Amino acid sequence: MPASPLNNLDLRGAVPLCHAFLRQIVRKGDRVLDATCGNGNDTLLLAQLVGGGGMVWGFDLQQEAIAATDSLLRLHGCRGQVELLHAGHEELATHISEPLRAVVFNLGYLPGGDKGVVTRPESTISALKQALELLLPGGLLLIVLYTGHPGALEECGAIKQWAASLSPKSFHVWRSRQLNRPETAPYLVLVEKA
Amino acid sequence: MPASPLNNLDLRGAVPLCHAFLRQIVRKGDRVLDATCGNGNDTLLLAQLVGGGGMVWGFDLQQEAIAATDSLLRLHGCRGQVELLHAGHEELATHISEPLRAVVFNLGYLPGGDKGVVTRPESTISALKQALELLLPGGLLLIVLYTGHPGALEECGAIKQWAASLSPKSFHVWRSRQLNRPETAPYLVLVEKA
Repeated sequence: MPASPLNNLDLRGAVPLCHAFLRQIVRKGDRVLDATCGNGNDTLLLAQLVGGGGMVWGFDLQQEAIAATDSLLRLHGCRGQVELLHAGHEELATHISEPLRAVVFNLGYLPGGDKGVVTRPESTISALKQALELLLPGGLLLIVLYTGHPGALEECGAIKQWAASLSPKSFHVWRSRQLNRPETAPYLVLVEKA
Repeated sequence: MPASPLNNLDLRGAVPLCHAFLRQIVRKGDRVLDATCGNGNDTLLLAQLVGGGGMVWGFDLQQEAIAATDSLLRLHGCRGQVELLHAGHEELATHISEPLRAVVFNLGYLPGGDKGVVTRPESTISALKQALELLLPGGLLLIVLYTGHPGALEECGAIKQWAASLSPKSFHVWRSRQLNRPETAPYLVLVEKA
């Protein structure tokens, strides 16, 4: 049997690595959350993976991000299974009470948007705690972190400290960085609920 | 559709994480390599993934490891697709010339065996270079590293330096560590050939 390129993963960066994990665990009919819609690329992948019988919640503080995500979902014919919320992700537990297969946080600023509007450590940690509560056993929380924007290092430090404090019996916590890229490259923190 | 436990990954440690990547890319009929058979657990997974139409090469310096792997494969009815070589992995290019979908290195000493026999930086780096040459585009080289045995830190340092030197255009290189385990926990280095 010849080698097939269909088997290939795409691990060229933190977002593709995050998507590879999502593709492996999210199935038709699942309920999932994009805590930071941004330009909508993660939301779109989640909507495609859960299909018409599933449900995606998408949060963003910026109306511009919600509008961009709305357009992208309509363009791909999967707006129906997504509830978009123009709200900070620290409010997510007030909007969602159903168990989730996967949650994505893509931190930092909106690409092409206002670089003054960034995610903040306090609200991010609060949102991460709420997200863990909502995760199904075996579910994944995936966080893409950036180091370049104002306040980024403070945010990365807070998340590392929080992630390191999670019980190893209850959570499998991984940090994945690219060894042949600068230390400033985006990276992935993954939490699996045992 | 109800949530199904079948979607679950098992990410409780470096070996399960390595196996999760193998399950995602290795397919029936593939050619793959286990550079360090040890007790044969990685060889067995590879043999099951490639099936009777595939091919696994398995190396180990210790006859004890080759014998244990042979028994394990026979027990599971998949000895036929595996060529076991009682040889150091630094000789792998003299035995293999076909392109490989995946290569696994599980370093350190044989569990339950002679702790004086460990993998060594020079031979390991030589073997890793040979393995990369054999990888198919999109193929994965997976290295599970341990920090506890004599010479381990030297070996880990040599591998980190080698991995960091790989061209980011040609190779996607990741290191994954558990944030809520001691720094001494085993970890995974992954190289994807672009």
